[in-house]
Amino acid sequence: MRKAFLKTAAGNGLLDRRSFLQSGIALSTSFSLGAFAAPVSDLNTAPNSSIAASFPEWMKTPGRADTEYGQPSIYEKQVQRHLQKSAPEASLFSIWHTPIENQRGIITPSGLHFTVNHNGIPDIDPQQHVLMIHGLVDKPLKFDVESLMRYPMVSVIHFLECAGNTATNAVSLSPLDQSAQELSGQMSGSEWAGIPLKYLLKETGLKANAKWVIAEGADGGSHSRSIPLDKLQDDAMVALYQNGERIRPSQGYPMRLFVPGWEGNLNVKWLHRLEVTDQPAYTKDESGLYSDILDDGRIQRFSFHMDVKSLITRPSGKQLLPEKKGFYEISGLAWSGYGKIKQVEVSADGGKTWAPAHLEGPILPKSLTRFTIPWRWNGSETVLLSRATDELGRVQPTRDQWRDQYASYSFNHYNGIQAWHIARDGIVENCYG
Amino acid sequence: MRKAFLKTAAGNGLLDRRSFLQSGIALSTSFSLGAFAAPVSDLNTAPNSSIAASFPEWMKTPGRADTEYGQPSIYEKQVQRHLQKSAPEASLFSIWHTPIENQRGIITPSGLHFTVNHNGIPDIDPQQHVLMIHGLVDKPLKFDVESLMRYPMVSVIHFLECAGNTATNAVSLSPLDQSAQELSGQMSGSEWAGIPLKYLLKETGLKANAKWVIAEGADGGSHSRSIPLDKLQDDAMVALYQNGERIRPSQGYPMRLFVPGWEGNLNVKWLHRLEVTDQPAYTKDESGLYSDILDDGRIQRFSFHMDVKSLITRPSGKQLLPEKKGFYEISGLAWSGYGKIKQVEVSADGGKTWAPAHLEGPILPKSLTRFTIPWRWNGSETVLLSRATDELGRVQPTRDQWRDQYASYSFNHYNGIQAWHIARDGIVENCYG
Repeated sequence: MRKAFLKTAAGNGLLDRRSFLQSGIALSTSFSLGAFAAPVSDLNTAPNSSIAASFPEWMKTPGRADTEYGQPSIYEKQVQRHLQKSAPEASLFSIWHTPIENQRGIITPSGLHFTVNHNGIPDIDPQQHVLMIHGLVDKPLKFDVESLMRYPMVSVIHFLECAGNTATNAVSLSPLDQSAQELSGQMSGSEWAGIPLKYLLKETGLKANAKWVIAEGADGGSHSRSIPLDKLQDDAMVALYQNGERIRPSQGYPMRLFVPGWEGNLNVKWLHRLEVTDQPAYTKDESGLYSDILDDGRIQRFSFHMDVKSLITRPSGKQLLPEKKGFYEISGLAWSGYGKIKQVEVSADGGKTWAPAHLEGPILPKSLTRFTIPWRWNGSETVLLSRATDELGRVQPTRDQWRDQYASYSFNHYNGIQAWHIARDGIVENCYG
Repeated sequence: MRKAFLKTAAGNGLLDRRSFLQSGIALSTSFSLGAFAAPVSDLNTAPNSSIAASFPEWMKTPGRADTEYGQPSIYEKQVQRHLQKSAPEASLFSIWHTPIENQRGIITPSGLHFTVNHNGIPDIDPQQHVLMIHGLVDKPLKFDVESLMRYPMVSVIHFLECAGNTATNAVSLSPLDQSAQELSGQMSGSEWAGIPLKYLLKETGLKANAKWVIAEGADGGSHSRSIPLDKLQDDAMVALYQNGERIRPSQGYPMRLFVPGWEGNLNVKWLHRLEVTDQPAYTKDESGLYSDILDDGRIQRFSFHMDVKSLITRPSGKQLLPEKKGFYEISGLAWSGYGKIKQVEVSADGGKTWAPAHLEGPILPKSLTRFTIPWRWNGSETVLLSRATDELGRVQPTRDQWRDQYASYSFNHYNGIQAWHIARDGIVENCYG
């Protein structure tokens, strides 16, 4: 391995990215190519039989036919969503977690996007589906899918996060040995396209005392939430597309409400009704589940934003660092429901020292942002942490700081710093920093 | 429909976007909600039996269970890739076109991304796959997938386009009645993540006379291309991820070369070998197929970049404008292999007058850019066109201007302006402007 002077960025091996990339640190297995090498002059002739014999089968035969809708490799079957829990009848209430540690970049594959289903998934015939807007409006309106398709649309890249994401870290007295998927997989990122709701509300007109909207889904349990009108007039949309195609049943086909930066539950799937009112309705889906209980027992209403948060995905829970020491690129995601990520700091020494990580562009508001920092692990036990700051100056609290604000059984909107314990044998585990 | 003063942007109905959005032009079917309306006071009580009886089935019963890897709705089955042609044995040579007119935004779903397969698709076991770098290097190296996973990675959003995209418009004397998918579906956009090739070449070191690289795939026909070393040292990568998951077999699993902005063929799938040389190898895949034949019969070598181009996707070929006149949002995509899109102009009067379209951010280099402009169609026959300019000042030529440069049978790298004929009955057809 080439000896090079590497500039450090913070304690216990965090490195300056530029000097790391320029140094060309070898990570490959460098050994002779043996039988696989073919000199340039042989390039356009048949390889000699001894070389050819060592080729894998797929290099010697024609491949298979492709399909109308391509699928992932059979060798990636294990990359799946994880079902957290369900009622005795599995279809009623289920939470499916994204394998977030397998992702690179800021887009989650649509099929792996997390979902929380309160009443199972309806398979809705788009030709029978309508969106109604009524209540405190000048003109109640009904839109079928074909009409909606003609409206001006926008496409935006945003994260979506369940209010209950990372709940186990909020309430469990001891840290559970869980993967990033199990701990924080109720969060994903996608490109969403649809009609800004303000265009539709402009058509219905709004009465002077209109202040709230009840959004209701067409699922068997009529999932519904109350949302302030101001937000809906701002950047909310009726989303019809995800990552370039019509949204999937799991994500609300044929349409869902999309409310950038606000808790997942508000993003009502299978949206069919918007009732404009002058006050919130305190539906079952918002009173019982999505309120924060403060330290003194009072209930804070309403808590809509998903606050600034980050997660190192490599290395993360249940992973194993393959070598006892050596170079690793620490990689993770940061996001904020308030806007853009401004900075992510990483610590490799349990929080004693911190270094700013590299943020990958484009840095977009209310979207995932990928961060990385190179790290030379010396093989000793330690704790890795990441701490995000957004453009409003909001910073992630520690777990203790977060818990000080709320009742011990409150678990929604947890955005405490995530700590990963690295043991000397390379095992990575969730811990409480 | 509310009468409003709408600012025009150019001839035959192109409108100023801001005034259009502010005017609230009604596109919905406005009629009484009838039995579906539920007053606020009834919200948390069971609907009365006559209302409930009219609800679709899915609103009255629990839905189905979700799955580990979610799939599109059964009602979207018709949105598929289209197989252009194949050898008698379908698996050998096939071109699969993206249904680009169905896309919104700048991300193409991975399963719908176009592909050109010269030798069918191999199903490669990643544990048996290696990437070799040899030839004019200081140290030949071999990388297995596990090693590559530890390298620093980047994720970027880029388009990919086949050199032969839109070839029929280049060579067919009369315009073929084809959809956007059939005409220009050999083009897609995705988020790609992988290792910048310069990091790997830094490890092998390069000899003084190293100038080209032959990239070879592990498919049955050893697809290969020669690529200038400079480009590979710039922004080329060994891509392992597409839209958040490992790339699919159709796209080169377990890895492909990704060369931003350069013709699709260079982006060698199932990449297994990079041989550094001092000259191009003139492989069968580059000499016979991907050279441009100039008007005087000489062959231009090499033509790597995909030039600035645009495509109105709504309305586009084989579509039908649902109303004889009225408001439509013209929507499309623009891209350039040289960098960012600077401007897209749209004409609704066959090229007499042009207006700049709205470009949706983020505007990224060598990526798709979505453009839109509102249009009030008065029901008369006309032709719609789009013309893109990139940040280097390169502008799309007309079809005639493009053809003047090349031999009449030359069809690669066609980037002439696309024209769509609108008949009075609303039928949209490909035409030659």
